[in-house]
Amino acid sequence: MHILIIGAAGMLGRKLTERLVADGRLGSGEVTKLTLADVIDPPAPTGFKGEASTVAVDISKPGEVDKLVASRPDTIFHLAAIVSGEAEADFNKGYAINLDGTRFLFDAVRLESAKSPYKPRLVFSSSIAVFGAPFPEKIGDEFFTTPLTSYGTQKAIGELLLSDYSRRGFFDGIGIRLPTICIRPGKPNKAASGFFSNILREPLAGQEAVLPVAEDVRHWHASPRSAVGFLLHAATMDLSQLGWRRNLSMPGLSATVGEQIEALRRVAGEKAVKLIRREPDPMIMKIVSGWARDFDTSRAASLGFTAEQSFDEIIRVHIEDELGGRVPD
Amino acid sequence: MHILIIGAAGMLGRKLTERLVADGRLGSGEVTKLTLADVIDPPAPTGFKGEASTVAVDISKPGEVDKLVASRPDTIFHLAAIVSGEAEADFNKGYAINLDGTRFLFDAVRLESAKSPYKPRLVFSSSIAVFGAPFPEKIGDEFFTTPLTSYGTQKAIGELLLSDYSRRGFFDGIGIRLPTICIRPGKPNKAASGFFSNILREPLAGQEAVLPVAEDVRHWHASPRSAVGFLLHAATMDLSQLGWRRNLSMPGLSATVGEQIEALRRVAGEKAVKLIRREPDPMIMKIVSGWARDFDTSRAASLGFTAEQSFDEIIRVHIEDELGGRVPD
Repeated sequence: MHILIIGAAGMLGRKLTERLVADGRLGSGEVTKLTLADVIDPPAPTGFKGEASTVAVDISKPGEVDKLVASRPDTIFHLAAIVSGEAEADFNKGYAINLDGTRFLFDAVRLESAKSPYKPRLVFSSSIAVFGAPFPEKIGDEFFTTPLTSYGTQKAIGELLLSDYSRRGFFDGIGIRLPTICIRPGKPNKAASGFFSNILREPLAGQEAVLPVAEDVRHWHASPRSAVGFLLHAATMDLSQLGWRRNLSMPGLSATVGEQIEALRRVAGEKAVKLIRREPDPMIMKIVSGWARDFDTSRAASLGFTAEQSFDEIIRVHIEDELGGRVPD
Repeated sequence: MHILIIGAAGMLGRKLTERLVADGRLGSGEVTKLTLADVIDPPAPTGFKGEASTVAVDISKPGEVDKLVASRPDTIFHLAAIVSGEAEADFNKGYAINLDGTRFLFDAVRLESAKSPYKPRLVFSSSIAVFGAPFPEKIGDEFFTTPLTSYGTQKAIGELLLSDYSRRGFFDGIGIRLPTICIRPGKPNKAASGFFSNILREPLAGQEAVLPVAEDVRHWHASPRSAVGFLLHAATMDLSQLGWRRNLSMPGLSATVGEQIEALRRVAGEKAVKLIRREPDPMIMKIVSGWARDFDTSRAASLGFTAEQSFDEIIRVHIEDELGGRVPD
């Protein structure tokens, strides 16, 4: 089977590619062809036995994504997005990639399917940013989407299009709202949510990390491994179970910063915890106070999606997947 | 003040125009200029003392609506839409007018406001079609939008854009979800919802009407006069009360067909009721069974929106506004 990943150069795209190459299959199908697309040429997959191609594509340009769809991939992962902060800072760029790009992709599939029967599986990475405060303590799948960012607006629109295009029979789509990914590998970044990962990843690597908020801040997390698991399950499950309600919040772990730190203490000891430096940042505190804290994801659970049950587990996943199984002394 | 109505040739646009001309003002402002736009040249308003212009415009064509916005109307009513059945039958046309057209309008205001300060009031007529079954008996404003038509999808997307563009400060927008308009003036039409009006309007005019569903079918109604009232209130109220949740379901009357008929009996007598011919239509019964029956519109009520409290009242409004105050013998 032929798999197309749009947004393949991002963290999630790279991890998904690695997993597909390692497994050699998606569900019951052998992965014979991989097309990796992103705005910059993504890295070529290493160790893949099938046919692989990497493509630099600007999905916001009319006609660009059509070339990718013309090869009729069986499964399309649409992970490409301008992230929240950038979509807020650059109105045009956010709408161009996140709305127009998504619609160009969906329309390319629609027009391809009009030529002769073609109905790929399409997995769309949405976000809990489709929700906006005030919300209930636990946000259920039937709560309305009132995003407070242009990014969240664009994701919510993508969800609506995905449902309608699926209902119309152009593709078999599913939109999955990912929790905040923790522990995000790589360097500390300036995203307002960065500290959730920084305060674990850096101490685990023997480095200092800054905690800008109070320990009672509660948020919604899943590991990169779980996120890849969501994508794979979304790509292989029977979607008729969803009816036309094709978008849903993925499971995650609701935990306070204090609980994150206690887990770090259990897994890596007091020495690691001591590397967390408290440096309250009123700006970040304000942003984070408007974020969702917990979700009711019973629908996703009943459909077979699973995530970590404790932060100890999330930390262990990071140690296994990023640190070769051990915490440096 | 200058008022622009897009979709001025439609039933609601014509009624809104008549009302604005009759009142001569909108809230505290004198209506000095009216621009009436539609895909066909709308009728010129009669008896208007200010400056009036009528414009034929295809809002789905890039740049077309910009010309209307360039004159910087103070209030914009966006009522133009390809209706449900047609948007379902003609995918491209529905998306072109209902999504692209709406976005072109919003973007025209955004770009105009970027030249020099400009922030009009923008009233968007949305629809209860943003909701899709299954839903609770009473649908609240916090229920999620899972439309089961492309029309409903396009309206839900318009709502999201309206909120985001308002939050961004490009205009001061409000989206109002109109109930089914009853009694719709004019000739019987083939819309699946047509019978709700037909079974009252036709007998009131001494004509036979067909009832294709059972009397226990419950639906959600407001008169054309109430709908115009919603638009005027939306155009003049203080929108800061809404926060960034700029879309809401309008009040209405939840009534069964049987209750409609009893009201007709009270207002116009047994002779009128006898003109209703029962002719069950399985197709229409199926379509209508998926429609919303009742709404919790306490938010709209708390914001000052009002509608009829009984079907007797809805019928009397029709007699006053369409039949010169009397039922023909």
